[in-house]
Amino acid sequence: MSEKGMLIVLSGPSGVGKGTVRQAMVKKYGQQFKYSISMTTRQPRAREVNGVDYYFVSKDEFEHEIANGGMLEYAQYVDNYYGTPLKYVNQMLDNGQDVLLEIEVKGAMQVRSKVSNGVFIFLAPPDLHSLQQRIEKRGTDDSETIKKRMIKAREEINLMTNYDYVVVNDKVDLAVQRIEQIIASEHLRVARVLSSYQKMLGDN
Amino acid sequence: MSEKGMLIVLSGPSGVGKGTVRQAMVKKYGQQFKYSISMTTRQPRAREVNGVDYYFVSKDEFEHEIANGGMLEYAQYVDNYYGTPLKYVNQMLDNGQDVLLEIEVKGAMQVRSKVSNGVFIFLAPPDLHSLQQRIEKRGTDDSETIKKRMIKAREEINLMTNYDYVVVNDKVDLAVQRIEQIIASEHLRVARVLSSYQKMLGDN
Repeated sequence: MSEKGMLIVLSGPSGVGKGTVRQAMVKKYGQQFKYSISMTTRQPRAREVNGVDYYFVSKDEFEHEIANGGMLEYAQYVDNYYGTPLKYVNQMLDNGQDVLLEIEVKGAMQVRSKVSNGVFIFLAPPDLHSLQQRIEKRGTDDSETIKKRMIKAREEINLMTNYDYVVVNDKVDLAVQRIEQIIASEHLRVARVLSSYQKMLGDN
Repeated sequence: MSEKGMLIVLSGPSGVGKGTVRQAMVKKYGQQFKYSISMTTRQPRAREVNGVDYYFVSKDEFEHEIANGGMLEYAQYVDNYYGTPLKYVNQMLDNGQDVLLEIEVKGAMQVRSKVSNGVFIFLAPPDLHSLQQRIEKRGTDDSETIKKRMIKAREEINLMTNYDYVVVNDKVDLAVQRIEQIIASEHLRVARVLSSYQKMLGDN
């Protein structure tokens, strides 16, 4: 009576801290779900490891996967591809394991259109000001790039309506706790558990 | 920027332990929501207090409220009326307070038809056998009544599809914890928080 796993999509504006929250989730609740490692054509940053943080591939390799329908979602940001290989996600879900995706908003909308029973969580900045601070602190982008990202962020926050939940990333620990509550709660949804109850009652 | 409160409806088959779970909820999280006291025409059981456990009223009084549209929901069980006075619920919701209703399944369906954004939680027995044990332990009903209740329970469990969440009452503490997770999680739903985010962004 193994149920299919649940697809949890963590997304939100660029710079909101998706990666940090995801890492904290994996550290604290890593036994309860599988993290789906994204594929990207961008260069690894310091301390990023291939096969752990991302699958780092060439542009040709990435486009080959797209052409073969091998991507659950993908998007281009600043001339690089980012995406989720479909194969591993499906394997894990079929094994009854929950799968966590941490992806950009455009990608999340692609997943939404393909996976009707996924749980879509929008990670939100406490306000746009703090978003800007975070981007500046990261120190890897010039001011023109930051300005573009701010405009993008406003657009992306308007996309919030396409998600199921909004989690403010005011503190990483609190954000992680809220996401854990959402996951626990979603496992109690009638739509997810009804068939097992019907079987149980049939056994009496 | 005070948001309206959230209506939480805790329901489930007769004998599943709704009252016990509700009491534990009020004891542990009583500061976080208001419990809506039901009105009934049945006689108080030992230790039940008017205005605490129920509003105990006469049949005439109850029917007068129904006629005046004063009941959010009501039902008849074993010749007695049980119901929720509308006035207090609306007052508490308007004040931004979450309201917990603990009601029978027929009443829950009436609320569902009137309150589209309520949170409907079905408290389920681990299995029908344990439901029977619980009813027997209570020792207030004869075997014919129990038999009727078992048939009723099967019907009611089929009603599960009309709820948002299913919480198994295997242990009261665990049931309470699950309900608390559902409430916390529901407060993060996009549909509930979007307007406050839009205001926040507009302020920047």
